Amino acid sequence: MDLHILDHRLRVTSISKDGLVNFTHPLIKLIFLRNRTRCKFFSLTETPENYTVVLDEEGFKELKPSEHLQVEGSVWLPLNVVSSGNVSSSSQTVGVTKIAKSVIAPLAEQHVSVFMLSTYQTDFILVKEQDLAVVVSTLEEEFSIFREVEGESVPVQDVHNGLHKNGKEAIQPTVHPVLIPQNHFCVMSLDPDTLPSIATTLIDVLFYSNSPKEGTPSTAGAELDCIKFFSFSLIDGYISLVMDTEAQRQFPADLLFTSSSGELWRMVRIGGQPLGFDECGIVAQISQPLADCDISAYYISTFSFDHALVPEEDIGRVTEMLRQQRKEPAAS
Amino acid sequence: MDLHILDHRLRVTSISKDGLVNFTHPLIKLIFLRNRTRCKFFSLTETPENYTVVLDEEGFKELKPSEHLQVEGSVWLPLNVVSSGNVSSSSQTVGVTKIAKSVIAPLAEQHVSVFMLSTYQTDFILVKEQDLAVVVSTLEEEFSIFREVEGESVPVQDVHNGLHKNGKEAIQPTVHPVLIPQNHFCVMSLDPDTLPSIATTLIDVLFYSNSPKEGTPSTAGAELDCIKFFSFSLIDGYISLVMDTEAQRQFPADLLFTSSSGELWRMVRIGGQPLGFDECGIVAQISQPLADCDISAYYISTFSFDHALVPEEDIGRVTEMLRQQRKEPAAS
Repeated sequence: MDLHILDHRLRVTSISKDGLVNFTHPLIKLIFLRNRTRCKFFSLTETPENYTVVLDEEGFKELKPSEHLQVEGSVWLPLNVVSSGNVSSSSQTVGVTKIAKSVIAPLAEQHVSVFMLSTYQTDFILVKEQDLAVVVSTLEEEFSIFREVEGESVPVQDVHNGLHKNGKEAIQPTVHPVLIPQNHFCVMSLDPDTLPSIATTLIDVLFYSNSPKEGTPSTAGAELDCIKFFSFSLIDGYISLVMDTEAQRQFPADLLFTSSSGELWRMVRIGGQPLGFDECGIVAQISQPLADCDISAYYISTFSFDHALVPEEDIGRVTEMLRQQRKEPAAS
Repeated sequence: MDLHILDHRLRVTSISKDGLVNFTHPLIKLIFLRNRTRCKFFSLTETPENYTVVLDEEGFKELKPSEHLQVEGSVWLPLNVVSSGNVSSSSQTVGVTKIAKSVIAPLAEQHVSVFMLSTYQTDFILVKEQDLAVVVSTLEEEFSIFREVEGESVPVQDVHNGLHKNGKEAIQPTVHPVLIPQNHFCVMSLDPDTLPSIATTLIDVLFYSNSPKEGTPSTAGAELDCIKFFSFSLIDGYISLVMDTEAQRQFPADLLFTSSSGELWRMVRIGGQPLGFDECGIVAQISQPLADCDISAYYISTFSFDHALVPEEDIGRVTEMLRQQRKEPAAS
């Protein structure tokens, strides 16, 4: 298999809930006005805590410094696994499960912190630029590694012959609390040419969903045990949307599409306290056992917490697995 | 004819060019998200100086105080002339010309300052709430006057029997310099249900037209002698747009409509220095001679200047009339 280091230098940022109004102008430009920006990698995820915005340096220039904007200090590079075609078809899983053993686990063993961004199209593994040498020496046994430079794929080799590898001493990873909200999610895409057709709906959901609607009774009661989570990304011209079924109902049914009709996902949110950006092994802790059970999973990291999405029919098995991992007695 | 005092209490505000980014969030809500606001009267006009926003108190609540927001101190009430059907059909003029002699001139004589807002559908004459008694006593000879209260039209009579009338001493009005830019304008409307279809284009034009487009050469040279002027209003569910032909080209041709196909208008901007809100007779000075010549005119006041739009085929006659008024020798 091939591993591509994509030609984007990314920043991971967070906008506070209160501060979103101050960033509406640049965000709408980045989402809808492609001919006004050179930004090619843009992702916006709303969670109950904040809005996580991951974007390249062209996009980052649009965000003015503000008390409402937190910026993680590193430059992050997105990695992408490309199947070479002759891959074993034994596993039908999608998402991060496919790369759990080949990428996630080895990087965790080498103490490389990753920031995952699953989309409808693919899974981006973001690593800090400063970790790149370790990443290459860790993954070059398993992958042909290419660095994309201005549209060209240039082979990369670890010139230091593994010198960058960190020691493999096993660290007992922190087991984080998890939360399993009740909403059902869908992972969807959209022809970029039809993005204008859903502009007002998308703007409404992204920027105004926290303000009350006139004449509509509050649904706060109905949302009990549900989590606010909405993710939009526009990366290299491809759009991906992750939303729950309640948000989905606001969009015209004929424009958004899912890979298989009506496929729904449940969420496992990882982390009781904000996770930070230095701890490694968080993704591995979830994706390894999922891979062992052949359970597909999308995985979306945000500024504060991580989020795995698993098929709704597997949530029972996943819950059980997480219980075991946390050494709680299983429900009888 | 009937004169209606509409059930809107309006504020006249101005947002600085630099400050627009801070108001993108409330303005997009007021323009596109009708189910999130009770605002029923909204008008936004971009000029080279600033953005003039006229809106009712429900809308005004959305605009947070800011160094970039100027608010005229008065509450303004919109008046609207409704033809009773038995009107003389001798004049085919539209816009402010129709009401020049019956409304504009008498109010000017009574030293009532007006703020005009012509739209595709009608012409709103805004007067200060504190002038209402004078307005009623001035216009009740000519009009049956009704005040709209929660959907009902209630007849209004001047209980003071003309006591409020100001003296009719003739004041020689200031003759303001005028500017006649080269662009051609259209006055258009749109089915509110199709507003979402043009949302991204309208957002682009309203909020981003001052930022450069990637890959497009600057058209600054081509815009020489042209003026930036774009007006959008959404009043009681009706949309009106005034834009020049260059802006018009960005919109899909099949959604916007004009009253008569391809009707184009030229602009006369009135005022060398910002006009303020206390001077009266400015509209009368232009609309009276236009009415004498049976020349149609839309009239849009903004925070700094006034703007009359006249049919392009009449711009020669209008220019000549303005020259005479300013006592300059006519071009031979």
